[in-house]
Amino acid sequence: MATTLNTSSKRTTGHVFIATSVDGFIARPDGDIDWLTGYAATGEDTGYDAFMATIDGLVMGRATFEKVLSFDSWPFSKPVIVMSRTLSQGDVRAGLDGKVRISSLAPRRLMEALAVEGWRRAYVDGGQVIQSFLQDKLISDLVLTRVPVLLGEGLPLFGRLTTDLPLRHVETTTFASGLVQSRYELD
Amino acid sequence: MATTLNTSSKRTTGHVFIATSVDGFIARPDGDIDWLTGYAATGEDTGYDAFMATIDGLVMGRATFEKVLSFDSWPFSKPVIVMSRTLSQGDVRAGLDGKVRISSLAPRRLMEALAVEGWRRAYVDGGQVIQSFLQDKLISDLVLTRVPVLLGEGLPLFGRLTTDLPLRHVETTTFASGLVQSRYELD
Repeated sequence: MATTLNTSSKRTTGHVFIATSVDGFIARPDGDIDWLTGYAATGEDTGYDAFMATIDGLVMGRATFEKVLSFDSWPFSKPVIVMSRTLSQGDVRAGLDGKVRISSLAPRRLMEALAVEGWRRAYVDGGQVIQSFLQDKLISDLVLTRVPVLLGEGLPLFGRLTTDLPLRHVETTTFASGLVQSRYELD
Repeated sequence: MATTLNTSSKRTTGHVFIATSVDGFIARPDGDIDWLTGYAATGEDTGYDAFMATIDGLVMGRATFEKVLSFDSWPFSKPVIVMSRTLSQGDVRAGLDGKVRISSLAPRRLMEALAVEGWRRAYVDGGQVIQSFLQDKLISDLVLTRVPVLLGEGLPLFGRLTTDLPLRHVETTTFASGLVQSRYELD
């Protein structure tokens, strides 16, 4: 009985791992990430694979999902939840059955449902979803990789909040390419 | 003759030394920097005095000037240029004569005039002035100190650009308080 209670009460925590320009954009206005993709070719290990190994699955919005669908192949081995009130499971193409689920739940309800499924750590991705999860205090830590460029405009990582969110800086790592990666924890 | 030409052709370079929230704001919407001022009390040396010792003077906009005027005392020992098309020298209060000059010149013209006066390094301060100097490629380096907080809204450090501005990351220093300071050079 105690065991059952403990298991079911474990929360799913949200984790962000994302790159932004120094002026805070995750993509150009049309979603283009050409300014970012060159860094993959440097061979620098920015910890993405290690991070992916720690998570139980991904949560993203429709815009990020559609961006990922434009890639040559589906890049995720972990399950993906797409938060959308307009898509339905029937919109997910056959090859992604079992890999992608559509959910219309609000952030906190979704995280509660994922906890019941046994998810401990969810990778929360995409600007709008990250913003809503930050607002609802569902993010435990942020790994922000600053790409050394100013874009001037684009899709911002951060958005409005109803209150300040203090961050605890944990560590910062720099790379020869000019990337600067900081990890912050939130209460 | 050659000496004269060399002297008169030396450019004044622009330098930025500024703190922002992790979401990129230099002040709250009303200009308040309460979220920032607590860090001065930690006693951490973030290099401000060393930076000030390297510059010949400051260039700022009217908004930053009026913020500084609200402080208990005038904080700058170096000359200050206030860029404004509406203020005139007569608007500068008596105690600041000889310390503050009003200029209606555009950024590049102003830097040319300062070069003639022998300024080598100008501290460019305030969001709007920094944005216009970046746009005009008058900034040689940026020292950005990230304060570990998300504010959600405020006065942004960066703004629109007509083209990407690549940055060269030089170094990043972290502080026990959670400040992360990166220096970037621009072409």
